[in-house]
Amino acid sequence: MTKLPWLNLTRTVRFGDTDAAGVMHFHQLLRWCHEAWEESLELYGIEAKAVFPGCRGQERWPDTALPVVHCSASFKKAVYGGDRLVVTLTPQQIDQGCFEVRSQFLLNNQNVAAGLIRHVAIHTETHQRCPLPDAISLWIEAAQIGQVREL
Amino acid sequence: MTKLPWLNLTRTVRFGDTDAAGVMHFHQLLRWCHEAWEESLELYGIEAKAVFPGCRGQERWPDTALPVVHCSASFKKAVYGGDRLVVTLTPQQIDQGCFEVRSQFLLNNQNVAAGLIRHVAIHTETHQRCPLPDAISLWIEAAQIGQVREL
Amino acid sequence: MTKLPWLNLTRTVRFGDTDAAGVMHFHQLLRWCHEAWEESLELYGIEAKAVFPGCRGQERWPDTALPVVHCSASFKKAVYGGDRLVVTLTPQQIDQGCFEVRSQFLLNNQNVAAGLIRHVAIHTETHQRCPLPDAISLWIEAAQIGQVREL
Amino acid sequence: MTKLPWLNLTRTVRFGDTDAAGVMHFHQLLRWCHEAWEESLELYGIEAKAVFPGCRGQERWPDTALPVVHCSASFKKAVYGGDRLVVTLTPQQIDQGCFEVRSQFLLNNQNVAAGLIRHVAIHTETHQRCPLPDAISLWIEAAQIGQVREL
Repeated sequence: MTKLPWLNLTRTVRFGDTDAAGVMHFHQLLRWCHEAWEESLELYGIEAKAVFPGCRGQERWPDTALPVVHCSASFKKAVYGGDRLVVTLTPQQIDQGCFEVRSQFLLNNQNVAAGLIRHVAIHTETHQRCPLPDAISLWIEAAQIGQVREL
Repeated sequence: MTKLPWLNLTRTVRFGDTDAAGVMHFHQLLRWCHEAWEESLELYGIEAKAVFPGCRGQERWPDTALPVVHCSASFKKAVYGGDRLVVTLTPQQIDQGCFEVRSQFLLNNQNVAAGLIRHVAIHTETHQRCPLPDAISLWIEAAQIGQVREL
Repeated sequence: MTKLPWLNLTRTVRFGDTDAAGVMHFHQLLRWCHEAWEESLELYGIEAKAVFPGCRGQERWPDTALPVVHCSASFKKAVYGGDRLVVTLTPQQIDQGCFEVRSQFLLNNQNVAAGLIRHVAIHTETHQRCPLPDAISLWIEAAQIGQVREL
Repeated sequence: MTKLPWLNLTRTVRFGDTDAAGVMHFHQLLRWCHEAWEESLELYGIEAKAVFPGCRGQERWPDTALPVVHCSASFKKAVYGGDRLVVTLTPQQIDQGCFEVRSQFLLNNQNVAAGLIRHVAIHTETHQRCPLPDAISLWIEAAQIGQVREL
């Protein structure tokens, strides 16, 4: 597991994330995965407006959009309100215009859940597939170098 | 209370709307208020793309945007998963460029909660205040005629 | 594809389901999958309180809980606010104590997205794996008979 | 404004908090208000399980529940994805068994939005009104002493 700080986040489960069974409602985890990705980009130094449409001070949207084409999540242990989770991100480039981010959720060093989000890059105007934006490629590369260093 | 069908909706509380206290999590009600307004417009015959940005087949966004400037909600009785609520909408024009929609939530003819959302009209381009779009004015007017008829 | 009415639902995409890219925000689909399952049970005649904890008038929680252990979703076409989707459910029993529900989302007879939620049955008290509750087994069986009939 | 660190939080607006108009979707603010309250309790030193039901290791629920009876929000300026907001909380006891928390949201020292959540205390078993739990009273009192000190 990498120890790069911008790939190792924390998240406290909030009361509104739970349901009447008394545990986290399942789809909240995928919201956390996306938010963890956004937080990681921010910590690494990529501004939201370089990647996401609809940001303050954007004269126009970024040339490339990154729609989600697939996501999944697995739940191993119940997660409760107040739980303080460690979230570890592992990005991987799939091809020139596709990448995915795995998120491991740990409580006291135990895996409790994992999620995955896969994005493709498309031209904002034409909606045609295109290469990943440089900022995202750099972030993925830096994550992999971080993993190599620990070997 | 009006009996116009497009102002009297139903909503079943879903499991994901609840929290670990076993009842509806409070802010879901404001989501329901907005969704009830959208459903009412739809039932009255106003297409989403006439009012909301980002709809299919829109060559450009509507000239007028309707941002929320205020909202509130009051909770009188606990609402549980599986509850089948009646939602009654009462729109009111506040001034030429401002309106609000009250939503009453009833279970077995008892008020359990109420919400209010106030919107202003602004030009999409300039963000300056402007009159309400015709479609919204017609919907508000039709709602008030419906209320008069019952007197 | 089955034509049983309680496996073929409709859902209009609401404005709050979208994000600043102008299309449905990805994880909303998994919320819709769970809500479609709940609606299907309701239409088939199973009361929420027979399956879900935290319902009105429940003297105690159902003996069996059905936590989600896995979910996934794939997105083929952009989905916009105001889109009126058909949602077709296909339940499948995996083993005595595990089942999954696939949801196909169609717009004008075109697949736009699909989701899957897998549940296991556990005793509410002991958290040990156990067989599915009868109501769920009946619902799955009835769905498969519906599919056979169409052959 | 108080400078107590556990009443002054930050929150970055995430992409999934926006809608197709390109700005924060209104009801997310009330989610943030509740989450900010939870974070403030945590920072002050009150464990989630002392206040909220459904937490890990709780032998039973807290004796007192704190349902929301009213909430409201006002929106002064558009809030965009990526905005880094300062959230300032001001709790106030209304009577022996009722309190509210105001949340001011600032961007670059400008008020952009404000929210309010009012809770009452009820016995978990009987649902009768009762005094606030000690932990909450202490938190409110400490907040007010913090405000006095700055005079």
